[in-house]
Order: sequence, then structure tokens, then C-alpha cells
Amino acid sequence: MLTAISMSAIATNGVVPAGGSYYMISRSLGPEFGGAVGICFYLGTTFAGAMYILGCIEILLIYIVPQAAIFKIEGLEGLEAEAALLNNMRVYGTIVLSFMALLVFVGVKYVNKLALVFLACVILSILAVYAGVIKTAIDPPVFPVCLLGNRTLVSKGYDVCAKVIEIDNETITTKLWRSFCDSEYLNATCDDYFSDNNVTEIQGIPGVTSGILAENLFGNYFEKGMIVEKRGLASQVDPDSSASSTNRFVLADITSFFTLLVGIYFPSVTGIMAGSNRSGDLRDAQKSIPIGTIAAITTTSTVYISCVVLFGACIEGVVLRDKFGEGVNGNLVIGTLAWPSPWVIVFGSFFSTCGAGLQSLTGAPRLLQAISRDGIIPFLRVFGHGKANGEPTWALLLTASICEIGIIIASLDAVAPILSMFFLMCYMFVNLACALQTLLRTPNWRPRFKFYHWALSFLGMSLCLSLMFICSWYYAIIAMGIATCIYKYIEFCGAEKEWGDGIRGISLSAARFALMRLEEGPPHTKNWRPQILVLVSMDAEQNVEQPRLISLTNQLKAGKGLTIVGTSVQGKFLDNYTEAQRADQSLRKLMETEKVKGFPQVVISSNLRDGTSHLIQVGGLGGLKHNTVMVSWPRNWKQPEFHQQFRDFIEVVRETTVASLALLVPKNVSSYPSNGERFTEGHIDVWWIVHDGGMLMLLPFLLRQHKVWRKCKMRIFTVAQLDDNSIQMKKDVMTFLYHLRIDAQVEVVEMHDGDISAYTYEKTLVMEERSQILKQMHLTKNEMEREIQSITDSSRGSIRRKKSFASRSHHSIDEGARVAEQLEEESVDVSNTKQVQLIHSKDASTPTSPTSLTAPAGGGNTWKDNKAADKGKNLEAGKDPFSMKPEWENLNQTDVRRMHTALRLNEVITKKSKEAKLILLNMPGPPKNRMGEENYMEFLEVLTEGLNRVLLVRGGGREVITIYS
Amino acid sequence: MLTAISMSAIATNGVVPAGGSYYMISRSLGPEFGGAVGICFYLGTTFAGAMYILGCIEILLIYIVPQAAIFKIEGLEGLEAEAALLNNMRVYGTIVLSFMALLVFVGVKYVNKLALVFLACVILSILAVYAGVIKTAIDPPVFPVCLLGNRTLVSKGYDVCAKVIEIDNETITTKLWRSFCDSEYLNATCDDYFSDNNVTEIQGIPGVTSGILAENLFGNYFEKGMIVEKRGLASQVDPDSSASSTNRFVLADITSFFTLLVGIYFPSVTGIMAGSNRSGDLRDAQKSIPIGTIAAITTTSTVYISCVVLFGACIEGVVLRDKFGEGVNGNLVIGTLAWPSPWVIVFGSFFSTCGAGLQSLTGAPRLLQAISRDGIIPFLRVFGHGKANGEPTWALLLTASICEIGIIIASLDAVAPILSMFFLMCYMFVNLACALQTLLRTPNWRPRFKFYHWALSFLGMSLCLSLMFICSWYYAIIAMGIATCIYKYIEFCGAEKEWGDGIRGISLSAARFALMRLEEGPPHTKNWRPQILVLVSMDAEQNVEQPRLISLTNQLKAGKGLTIVGTSVQGKFLDNYTEAQRADQSLRKLMETEKVKGFPQVVISSNLRDGTSHLIQVGGLGGLKHNTVMVSWPRNWKQPEFHQQFRDFIEVVRETTVASLALLVPKNVSSYPSNGERFTEGHIDVWWIVHDGGMLMLLPFLLRQHKVWRKCKMRIFTVAQLDDNSIQMKKDVMTFLYHLRIDAQVEVVEMHDGDISAYTYEKTLVMEERSQILKQMHLTKNEMEREIQSITDSSRGSIRRKKSFASRSHHSIDEGARVAEQLEEESVDVSNTKQVQLIHSKDASTPTSPTSLTAPAGGGNTWKDNKAADKGKNLEAGKDPFSMKPEWENLNQTDVRRMHTALRLNEVITKKSKEAKLILLNMPGPPKNRMGEENYMEFLEVLTEGLNRVLLVRGGGREVITIYS
Repeated sequence: MLTAISMSAIATNGVVPAGGSYYMISRSLGPEFGGAVGICFYLGTTFAGAMYILGCIEILLIYIVPQAAIFKIEGLEGLEAEAALLNNMRVYGTIVLSFMALLVFVGVKYVNKLALVFLACVILSILAVYAGVIKTAIDPPVFPVCLLGNRTLVSKGYDVCAKVIEIDNETITTKLWRSFCDSEYLNATCDDYFSDNNVTEIQGIPGVTSGILAENLFGNYFEKGMIVEKRGLASQVDPDSSASSTNRFVLADITSFFTLLVGIYFPSVTGIMAGSNRSGDLRDAQKSIPIGTIAAITTTSTVYISCVVLFGACIEGVVLRDKFGEGVNGNLVIGTLAWPSPWVIVFGSFFSTCGAGLQSLTGAPRLLQAISRDGIIPFLRVFGHGKANGEPTWALLLTASICEIGIIIASLDAVAPILSMFFLMCYMFVNLACALQTLLRTPNWRPRFKFYHWALSFLGMSLCLSLMFICSWYYAIIAMGIATCIYKYIEFCGAEKEWGDGIRGISLSAARFALMRLEEGPPHTKNWRPQILVLVSMDAEQNVEQPRLISLTNQLKAGKGLTIVGTSVQGKFLDNYTEAQRADQSLRKLMETEKVKGFPQVVISSNLRDGTSHLIQVGGLGGLKHNTVMVSWPRNWKQPEFHQQFRDFIEVVRETTVASLALLVPKNVSSYPSNGERFTEGHIDVWWIVHDGGMLMLLPFLLRQHKVWRKCKMRIFTVAQLDDNSIQMKKDVMTFLYHLRIDAQVEVVEMHDGDISAYTYEKTLVMEERSQILKQMHLTKNEMEREIQSITDSSRGSIRRKKSFASRSHHSIDEGARVAEQLEEESVDVSNTKQVQLIHSKDASTPTSPTSLTAPAGGGNTWKDNKAADKGKNLEAGKDPFSMKPEWENLNQTDVRRMHTALRLNEVITKKSKEAKLILLNMPGPPKNRMGEENYMEFLEVLTEGLNRVLLVRGGGREVITIYS
Repeated sequence: MLTAISMSAIATNGVVPAGGSYYMISRSLGPEFGGAVGICFYLGTTFAGAMYILGCIEILLIYIVPQAAIFKIEGLEGLEAEAALLNNMRVYGTIVLSFMALLVFVGVKYVNKLALVFLACVILSILAVYAGVIKTAIDPPVFPVCLLGNRTLVSKGYDVCAKVIEIDNETITTKLWRSFCDSEYLNATCDDYFSDNNVTEIQGIPGVTSGILAENLFGNYFEKGMIVEKRGLASQVDPDSSASSTNRFVLADITSFFTLLVGIYFPSVTGIMAGSNRSGDLRDAQKSIPIGTIAAITTTSTVYISCVVLFGACIEGVVLRDKFGEGVNGNLVIGTLAWPSPWVIVFGSFFSTCGAGLQSLTGAPRLLQAISRDGIIPFLRVFGHGKANGEPTWALLLTASICEIGIIIASLDAVAPILSMFFLMCYMFVNLACALQTLLRTPNWRPRFKFYHWALSFLGMSLCLSLMFICSWYYAIIAMGIATCIYKYIEFCGAEKEWGDGIRGISLSAARFALMRLEEGPPHTKNWRPQILVLVSMDAEQNVEQPRLISLTNQLKAGKGLTIVGTSVQGKFLDNYTEAQRADQSLRKLMETEKVKGFPQVVISSNLRDGTSHLIQVGGLGGLKHNTVMVSWPRNWKQPEFHQQFRDFIEVVRETTVASLALLVPKNVSSYPSNGERFTEGHIDVWWIVHDGGMLMLLPFLLRQHKVWRKCKMRIFTVAQLDDNSIQMKKDVMTFLYHLRIDAQVEVVEMHDGDISAYTYEKTLVMEERSQILKQMHLTKNEMEREIQSITDSSRGSIRRKKSFASRSHHSIDEGARVAEQLEEESVDVSNTKQVQLIHSKDASTPTSPTSLTAPAGGGNTWKDNKAADKGKNLEAGKDPFSMKPEWENLNQTDVRRMHTALRLNEVITKKSKEAKLILLNMPGPPKNRMGEENYMEFLEVLTEGLNRVLLVRGGGREVITIYS
């Protein structure tokens, strides 16, 4: 019923061409599910057809013309009789099948006409049963059953229902006596039970009015071999006697339990979808399917009710034994009950099973044809063709062949349960499709049938699934295994059908939902992943000029973040649409070859500068926004014709700073390794000058996850002045790395004061910073917790580092841990002071240091807790760096000093890292105005001169790596 | 072991402050899970503490100083003895608890020192057991057990292990005899089993070398009341005799089965996390936790092995009865085995349970303190405070109180299973956290402990879950219920902690994955949802000028699609960042008040035109791109100061056309209803002039899902010429709507030829189109399928409508169905002809019709199968409309005619739809060049004059509604 509701909803949501359930599932859940379930359903229907044909032959041979049996059954016992019957069924089955197939081939219109005849037979049979039930209620038939005590006796075991009979005043023992006693004489030793109980003869079919219906209504489950006992009758049982005489009584022949009974009755409801297979032949499937389904359900229910009434008219035990057992045959009872004649039932059953077979033979090929026409399973294509009038000739042939296999097997008991599984699976998916579409609420889901609800469909689905596993979990697993194989095969064949399946709708909803969730706030440092916006430029043919940028992105994919590859095309959207399309294509192609999963974004803009700026501003969506921009170093920036490019580059640097984005600038990008290369040795060198949110530490870690860099070792260089305790410094760095869980060699490079004199002040600042971080590792917890008490300053919602920390004592505070502890404190005490910034001696550095080379960039020295979705924060963080930014443009004499510093530093780097596979360096903040731009570029050129691969890194003003779990 | 691995991985992934498992779970899976599991774990630990204390009192009272019992146990039997023991335990338990709590309060450092003592005790005990086992192997102790046949006799039942004893040559029956026979005399009638079997005395502890270990290794499960039989001994049993003499034998006192045994042993492994609770006190938790855990596992395993060895040294049945049962007490056996003295074991057990209790009392308050400090459960805040030295005073008090409750209950058997559940749940989540983080691979997941794998963690998780349900599914459900309640409570309290939990990582991955999936191709018509980019403008204060646009978007939310609200701010990104932030804030605020879920995008651009253009181009990401643009009608476009605004509007219209986006232009947007309004009656009128992808039909359907429009009825107006068969036309429209499953009244408006003469040609065109669609509904399937055969033209991969269709015969083809059928055919035959376009007499219309008012807009007359992800298609579809576009700018005399037409049409619309709540109209294509722009605007003004709410709709060139399921 639930499935029928779901199916009606789907069927009334638009035109349903050929294929019925297959069409509905494949168009709702995609070709893979549709195909897998469709094929299973096809097999189920086909084998069901074979079973119907066999059933109709059985009726023919047993009731109608037993004399037609080629292999005689009479006189044979048990297995032999069974075998003879099966052989008969094979022969006749094949004949009937051939005839039916021919009929279907000749024309489905004859089948349709016959269907009416068959329907009439079914209805007549049902009516006959009801008539019989009414008739027996008034005038019960003579159908005597013999009981010993309350146990029903096997009919073969007696001729007269009595222990003895009086003939001519002489007491003669009966056949019954002889079967229970050791001799035929009256003094014989008899079975205890036989002696203790009386023999009674009652009517097997007392009729519904006798109260037997109520008595039978709440029956018990029997175990196999249990003796059937009529309730309400007395029975004398000696508890000690062994139960050796059981085979004279009617026994339960199988252990019955709820799920078994469900299994027995289930196949009778599989008809509800038989009609939907032929949806292609229906004039208005949308109207016919719901009506037909409801009609089918009504008929089935009627049959069920008639069964209840029918068996409610007989005593228990009458209908329990099999056709080759010794009890009374159930069919016989039905015949006996039917009115006016048992033949109504016999012919009714015959024609209805016959008709069902014919329906299967008509429906199954159409289903197969629909699947084949979709072409999702290549080798089935041939079955998609049909005769001129659309009849699926080849599909019919295949169906008939499969059916013939079933008939030759003849005893389908072993296969039957798996067919039920196929049907159940099909129903499950129909329910699933309805539930899914209702929940997803696409605008296109507007069924005309209104009486559905996702909960009903979901319940139906659950019931189907439960029923599968309750009935037989191994068959359920086998059926699912088969379906999975077909699914995988269809997937493997690459069904590229786009039918707008619900799966896609799920993706859409999931993406939307996940993005909305992410919107809530910026991710925590722990969840930080590089979400890279790669800015590439295109040449005249709209090919990417720096393909290695994409390779590098791939090598960073251990970050598992988002990748957007953006480019801007000069022109007007209305006119240059083609170019944009071509650029998009070439981006996609490149991303595919470089195995970068991400999104290309092409923007047509009247000027490239604006285009790039807008990409930086609005690339990404919701939580999937980039946090890192990658752009290559403008190679020939000194040449006047590339002047614009160089200006654009500086602008990008500035904009990332404002937007608090990290920036990666690979120099000599063309010399970077492709994804195919493998470095078998070498180093990735990090020159750790500024602690800039930790990007410098994280990037080599990510790179080393990739095959290209796996064998490279990471080295960290840090610069010490001569008066520094470089041994202690090395130890500190190593402790820091230990806490960061990063494997690296540490090297402290000593430089003479004179060499970097121009730079000493900044360096001190830098050391200050680094030292703070390094010395976090020194304190014991107790010292730390005590320290917390003394931190009270929280102006602007931030905790400023106390001046005392600047003393660089080796017992300064474990800041990281402190911050965390502090936060825990705060969340209890002060709810609104979420933003914790540790700004190191900022007040001192800004005004007095015009040459500050390595001054903390882009808020790089802020250690923020990013809990607060406080928008003002970014603003402030974005503003801060400006005031701290080195004034490249002011003093000309400092330029000279700076160049000297760059040269010296370059010398040291060249000396130490000449052979390194990759060098990572901090990138200083951009100049404030145009005056300093060239100096800035020149400084970086000098700094990196002679080095092969350099990756300039500028943090986004937020921590990207943490020592916390 | 698996949990220990997971925990080690998490613990070595950064600093673990106080809180241990709670910290790990809450920082990995979020505060809700962390809090729920943490509280459960806290309760588990606290009650476990109570159990430890009770256990240690039990040892004290039974073995060490039984005379200390306040309520005397000796001489009492069964329940009374039990009750007395419990009372003793209550008194002493309270005393011990107070003492322990005081000790913890005074200083955890004493506890830590005691811990060493306790550890020594445990180790000594274990050593004593091993020593004892070795000793008994060499020199088994005297520990006789009496057997009758192979059945162990209860020790109380006999004094001498014999049936009779010979004293002074006189045979005297024993106590044993008397318990089995009816008199003490030798001729007494005795129990059959007693008569048939001999009495033997064997050693209960034969030692491991006796082979008893191997014999015991594969034991059987007993059912309750089963007699313990020694394997390998003969026994004579009369099958008929009733088993009435069972209470003289040692019986199994509970039914044992695997899960029960697991349940009994499980609590002994819950210690692996006891240490992690005190992570805050550890110097380097990252090192200590893995080492400590491994040490704990080793100890536990040793204990397990010693148990195996120990019980392997005794015969079955010796250790089976309870302390108040009649068998031999298990503890006694251990004592007997211990070497050099049972007291080692007794004191070892005493001190170790004592120590475990102390550990619980130390660990639990720290766990509670950690939870409280996070402030996720408001009323627990007070427990976050501590003494000056950091000791959690209040938390200790609470813990001691809960513990005292446990001690007063004393018999904790009923509560014990739920505690195991709490522990298991905690382990499950630790495993889950590890598995999740490994799978998500955030860059921050870099545990120093390398021997973990997500599959192991996953297995651990599954095992924990299984164990919960296997042990006792109802307790599992209760425990989960409790945890769920806490979870919901924390959620309700709105824990706004952002700890960078894995859940967020999942969202990120899910969003990325879902978007990647969507990338694969454009969605099918069936999945089409309006994904709206709302273009709003901001005033000087950065407030949205047209808030009703957002309301209208909300009213369309039945489409369940994406919403992006975009605006562009004039300026430079570097300078106007603040304005952009403010605009973003006000957009967010507005969206929140209007309950529109979506994403605001603000772009700062040097000119607004470019900004808007870029939003249209790159708004959205991957599959979540907008397909519809909504922009309000430029109200005062005629005034020169708004000239730019009007030009921008035209550009937006042009760009949406090029980008194949649908366009919605609400006129008089300020008069649109707010979300609070409810129309109780009235109509939504659609003037269906062009079939433009079906947007006109879909929009009212979506609007009517919203409360504001729910009560409005939909009417569709269509214009017929006098020579049209307007009755037939109405029928056709109704059939079409039936197939679209849309409820609407249909009205055909007849207009005189003269009135719309300037427009006749276009109207014919329009009618042509509509008629084609309407007449789809006429054909029977057979005609349709035959028709398919005749369609062969497929130039440019599209099937052009045959000229014959233009004849408008009522038996023309069911095109929709045909296309679908054709597609199925094609997918078999021609793999590359996916794009099916039906372009109606296009060749005729383009060159000869300069005044074509309602010429199909934006590819609106293409009926495409959007299967193909062919990029070229969009291009072509985008280009087509240009060639078909009305040439607004060419002929001045046509302008006059056009205005006349607009006037006439306006007259009709005003007459029919004056009272309508909303009027939907097709929007014609934009003029090609600037010359026609004003005419175009003027035309629309005239067309909609005097109408209240008009929504101009322009399709995106693709079908958005379909008759297919």
C-alpha cells in the first residue's frame, strides 16, 4: 500500500513512458540505481512468469486432466511422484510458454483482450469462494474428519472413524485399531494414547457461522512435526509415554512463524507493479497507474480476505498437509467450499495463473526494452529494437529463453526467495525515490496525486528493507550483491545519462547546506587549510601562461582545501564572451591534466586590474572562500612593456594585505617541478625571519605529502647575531618544532653585526618575536597558571603582552598555552573578550623605524583567537599593517643600506641553500605609494638573486598552524 | 587497545591541557559532543570511584578485620548477611570517602606520592600470584575437594569426604550419607545417583603443571543451576530419575555467556583513561599519555593473564560460588594460591582498590573543572573555580557528594552496567574523533604517534558500539538517551565555542565534494531551481535601497535554490574597504530580517557597471552558480540624473541574455508585499505571450507555496486573434497545464486584428510557438512513434521542426514526448547528437521582421535537452537571440505602431487584470544598440502603465519546467 502511494506520486509527476518502475527509479535516482534495480526487477518478473506457467500446468495436471500426464503420477510415492510431476510440468510448461510467446509476438492486443477474460475468471473464482462460504454457513458440506482425542488422524490411516465396529453383533476392530495396536484382537496391547482417548468424527468444514472463524482467528505457530490438536476437545495424555505414534496423526509439515507466512503470502502482492511495466502502452499512464494500482491492491486485499474467511470456515489441521503428504489438501478444501461448483475455482485458478504468466511475458520484454533503449548497459542494446509496431521482438525472445530456463528447473523453490528480494528491492527504491524527491522539494516535484508524504514513503522503504532481512538475510545480501554488481557495471560502462536524478538534487542541497554552515564564522586555526586562489594570465590564444602554478597547487593539495583558478580577460562581456569561454575551457583542461580539483573562474573586464581585484574580492562563496592567493613573480618587470604587469602585481600584494589573505609568490615558476618529477633527495629550506602566522612552517609540511617532494628534507634556517646565544636558540627552535609536530633540521646562521647593521633594529624586533614563541616551551604549568593571574590588561578586547616579556628572560611565559588557558578563564568570566592579540612592542616600532625591513607583515604578529565572528576585527587587523608597514619610499639613503642588507642576506642564503630544491622566504609588506614600488621589487630581486626556486610567502595575518590539538 | 591507539594519536597532536578525553573530544567533535560525553564520563568515573571505595571496604571487612564490622555478619544467612555487609560498607565507605576527599583537598602531591605506593602494591600482588602459581606447580597446596561421581559437592554438605567411615570396625555413615539417604542406617533408601557413584576426594588446586590449564582452557558456558561436572571423571546417571538432589552439588549460580563475561571483565580496563583525566597536571601530556596508556594496557593484560593462569591452576567448580553461596570462594582460592602469603594479595587488593578510588576522586573533579571552565553548561560554571594552587575545590565537593550517593546506595549492581556504557561511549567518541580527523586530513592533523590508522579507529568505534548493544541494548539506549539530553541541553544553551571541531571540517569537505559533483554539467530541467542573484544598490549609508527585492526572494524560496545578494560599491578596494564591510553587514542584517538564507557579495569597483558585470559573471561557485538575475526596474530612468542607472539596467538585461540567465524585473518593487502580509484572496495573472522556458508558469507556482501568496489563484491569459479557434485554444492550454501539473484558470482574450495590426506578424509567430506546445497533447503513442521514423534531419546536432508542423493541423506531433522518445533512440544510435532544438520558422522571422515585438527572447523558443555538457551549446544558444532580436532602433515609424500596440495591450491587461495581486509578463529582448534603448524602456512603461505590481520575466534560454517525471 505504501509502495503504491509512492508509485502513484511519482507516476503522476509527469509523463511516464515505457519502463514503468525502471523509468521512475532511473529518472529519480540516476541510471545506475535505475539499471540495477530494473534488471533485477526484470529477472524477478521473468522468473515469476515461469512460476506462473508452472503453477497453471500443475492445476491442469492435478485437477483438470490428470490423464494428460505424460509421466504417470498415480501409484508413485513421495519423491518419485514429485519427479514425475516435475517432468510433466517441464514438457507442458515448454509447450505453454511457446504458445504464450507466440501470442505476445503476434500482437499485444490479443493479450489485452485475453486479460479481460482472465480478470473475469479471477473475479468469478473469488465470487465462487464467497458464495461457497455463504453456502457452507447455511448448509455445511459433508467433510468428515476423524479425531483421536483432540488429534486429527491421517486419512490414509483409517477407513471407518471408529476403534471397533459392530457387525452382526460382533465387534470387529478397524484399520485404525490395527495401526495403533499390536494385533487385531480386542485384547491387544495398544498405544496408551489410543487406549485413553475416544475417537470422534466431526465436520472438517463446519462453516463460518459455527464459530470456527473466531476460534481460528488467533492461531498458534506450529513447529515442524507437532501434532495438530483441535482446540476445545479433551485429550488424555500420559506424560511418561514416548511419542512414538506420531506418524498416524496429521503433523505440521513446516515450522511456521510470522516471517515465513509473510514470505508465503508476499508473492501474491507483487502484482501491483505488473501493470506499470507496460506504462508505455498506456494512453495516460499518469491516470492509469494510480487507478490500476489501487485496483490491484483492492483485488489483492479481497483475495486475502477470502483466504481468511475460507480457512476460517474449516477446522485447523484440515488444510495443513502438502499434496504428497497424508493430510487433506488445501486445494481440495477450496474446491469443496466453492459454490456452485469446484470447477469454477479450478478453472479460475488455471486461467488466472495462465493470465499472470502471459502478463509477465508481455511486461518483462517491455521493461527490458526500456532499459536497453536507454543504452546504459551496452551489450543489451540489441534488445531495444522492436518490430515495426514497436513490439520488442528480441527482448521477448530473451525473456522467453530465461523463462524456459525457469521451466526446465521446474522446482523453483530455491530461487523463489531471491525473486521476492528483487521485488522488495524494487519497491524499496520506488519508496526511496518518492521520499527523496519530497524531501528535496525541487520545483519540478508537483505530483497530481496528493495523498503522499515522505514519512509514508520512508516507512515503506524501511519496511521493504526490514522485510528483506527478516525473511532471509542471506538472500537479501545475495540480491543486494547482484544489484551492486549491476550498479558497478553500469557505472564502469560510464552511463553518462543526465536525467536530472535526485542524487544531483542531493548534491545541490548538501552543497548549499554545508556552505551555509560554514558561513557562521571563519574557520579555526586547527581547521585552516590553504584555500588557494591561483591568479594566472592568459596569452593571446587563451592558454595559461604559467602552467607550473597549477602544478604547484596540485603539490599543495595535501591541504585538501579549495582551489579556484582565476583569470581575467580584457574586453567587454557582451563582445568577448567567446574568448572567456575559450579561456575557461583551457583552464579546465589544464586543471584536468594537472589533476587539480577546483573551480575555474574567468572574468571579462574592461581592465585586467579590476578583474583581478574582483576575483580577489568575490571569488568563492560563503565558507568556501579563498584564504591564500598565489601569483607568479612578474619576470620581466623592469622592461617598460611589462610595466603594467608589475603594477598589477604590487596591487595584488596590497589587496591581499588589506583582505587579510596569505600570499604565495613563486619566483622562476617555470623551473618548478611538474607533477611527474620526483626529487630523490635534497632539501626544502625555510628561512625563518618573521613568524608570519606559521605559513612558512606549514607549506613544506604540505609539500612533503606529495610524491614530488616526499624525499626532500626540511631545513629551517634562522639568523642570529653574534651576541645571541645561538646554541640556546637552536634548542628553542627545535622545541618549537617538536610542539608543532614538524620534522626538520634546524640551523642557526650567525651574521656579523656590521654586515647587517642597517638591519639590526628590525632583526632585533624579529628575534623578539621569534624568541617569544620559542620560549613558550620553557615554563612548567604551575608557573604558567600563576602568570595568568597577573594578566589583566584587556584594552580593545585584547591582551597585550606585558612589557616584562620583552626582557627575553628564559623564564618568560608559555604564551600559547597561556592564551588557551586564558581563553578558558575568559569564557567563564568575560564573555566578550574573544580576540586575543599579542602585539609585540608595536608602539615602539612604528614611528621610529622607517627602514623596518622585516616588520611583521599583514598583522602577522597577531595571535588571534578567531572564535569571534566579529567583523570589525578583520577591519582592524587589515588596518594595522599599514601603520607598521616599512616606508620604502621615504629615505633614499636607507635604500642603499637596504640593498646592502639584501646582498649580504642573499650571500648567506646562496651559501647555505644553493643546492636546496626549494627556498621559502618571508615576503615583506608592500610599499605604501608608487614611489617605493621599484625599490621594493629591486630589493626582492637582489635578495633572491642566483637562487633557483624561491617561494616568497606572506602570511594572511592569522595563525595557520598551532601547537594545540 | 584500539582506543589507546586513537587516544595516543590525538594526544600527540598538540598540547593537551586539563580535561583529557573531554578535551580531545570537544576539540575534535565540538562542544556538544565533548560536553555530553564528558559529563557522562565524569559520572562514570565518579561512580566508579564509589565502587572502588566500596570494594576496598569489602576486602577490609571480610579479610583483614572482620571484627571491625559494626553490624555483625557472622551467624547471619543470605539476605540478612548481605544487608549487614552493606550497612557496614555504608558507614566505613563514608568515612573512607571523607578521608580521601580531605587528602585530595589538602594536596594532590600527596596523592601522587601515594599513587606510587599503590602501584607497588598492585605489582606486588601480581608478582605474588605468579609466585604462587609457580609454587603450586612445584608443591600443590592441600585443598581437597569432594566429588560424587563427577559432581563437586557443596562443602557444607559433608564433613568427611566418604559415604561411610570405618570406626572401630564399625561402619558409620557420614553427614554426606545422611544428606542423600532417608536414614542414617546402611539399609536406607538413597538417591539413585548417590548409590550408583563413588565419592572421591581430589585436590582443588592441582597446579598448572598437572594439565589442568589445558583442560580448563576451552571451557563451556554454564546455565544457571547446572551441576558442575569435572571432565574426565566417570558418572553413572539413570536417565529416568528426577534431578531432585541438586542443591547438594555445586551449581553454576548464573548463566554465563560470552557477552556477560565481557561485561564482568570490562570494568577492569576502564583504567586506561583514568590518567588522561589529569592531563592538565602532566608535564608533557603528549609524551605521558601514550606511554601511560601503554603501561596501563600492559598492566591490565598482565592481570588478565594472571587470571587465566590462576584459574588455570584450579579445577572447575572450585571458584564458582558466590561469597554467600556454599561453594568455595574465588577470593579464597587466590589467597590460597598466593605466595609467600595470602596477605600480600589481600593487602594488594585493598590498597589497589583504595588507590583506584583515590585516583577517581582526583581525576573526576579535574575533568569536571575542565568542562566547567569551558562554560558550555552554564550552571556548572561555579565548578570551574579552584583554590589558589589550581585545585578544583567546588568540583571536588560535588564529586565527593555524588560519590557519597553511590556509597549510600552501596549495592551498585543495578547502576554498574550504565557506567560501563558511559565508558564505552567515551571510548567510542575518542575513536571517532581519531578516525574523522584522519579521514579529513586537515593540515593540522600531524600526530607524533604514527601507529594509527583510520580503519583501526573505525574498528575500535564499531566494537565499542557493538559492545554497548551486545552487553545490554536497553542500558545502551539509556546511556545514549542521557548523552543526547546533555547534547541537546548544551546546544540549547548555545555553546558558541569555536574550537575548530571536525564537524566543521566535514562541512568544508562536504561542500567541496558536493560542489565538485555539481560541476560535472548543468542541471537537468527537472532539477532546475531558481538560483537567484539579486542585484541591489546601496544608498550613501550603505543601506539597501530596495529591501522588497529581498522579500520577494524569500517568497520564492519554495525553489529551495541558492540566493546571492550582490551589490557593488564604487571606489578602490584599498581605500573603501570599510564601506564594503558596512555594506556587507547591512546586507547580512537585511537577509536575516527577511529570512533569506544565502550569501551576500559586495564588490568594490572603480565603476559600478563593471562591478555588477563581474557579479553576474563570477558570482557563485561551481555548481552553485546563479541562473536567474533579479533586478528592480529603474524607477526614474527618464530623469537625466538617473541616466546612468538606466544604462546599467539595459546592460544587465543584455548580459543576462548573453550569459543565458533568466531575468526577473519587478516593477514598483516598493509596493510588493512584505513577508508578514497575507493576501486572503485575489489572483496572480500570467500573460502568456511567449513560451519562454516556462518561467512564467513556474514562478506563480513557487510564489503560491509561500504564505503571502498561498490564497491567491493563478490565472493564465493568452491572446487569440479573431480567426483563431479560441475554444480549442483554451482546451489546449488546459491540457498543457494538466501535464505540467499546475492549477490555473485559463482565459483566452480575443483582440481585433486592427488593434494589434502592427503586431500581427509577431503574434502569429508567438501563437505558432505556443500552439506547438499545446498540440503536443493530442497524439496517441502509436502516431508518435511512427512519426519518429520520419525525423531524420539533424543538422547542427539538432532536430529541426519539419515544415509540416507549421501547418498547425490538430494532428501535428506530440513534440515533447517525441523528443524524449527520440532521445532514447538517439542515445542508442547516434552518440553525439544530444542537443535537440526546435526552432520555429526562425529563418523566416529574422530578416523580414524588424518590428518583431515578441520574438522569442534569449533562445526562449529552444527546447533543449541539456544532457550534453557541451560548452559550445551555451555559446550558440547565447548568440541566437541576437539575430532574432527586434531591431528597436531602426525604423521610427514602427515605433509609433509599436506604441499603439503597447497601448492596446495595456488596455486589455488593465481591463482583465487591474485587480490582480501580481501580473507576470514576458519581457522582450533588449535593443541592440544605444539608439533603441529609450524606445525599449518607453514601450515597457506604456505596456505596464497603470498596473500595480508587475513582474517582467525573461527566460534564460533553457527549459525550466517539464511535463516529464
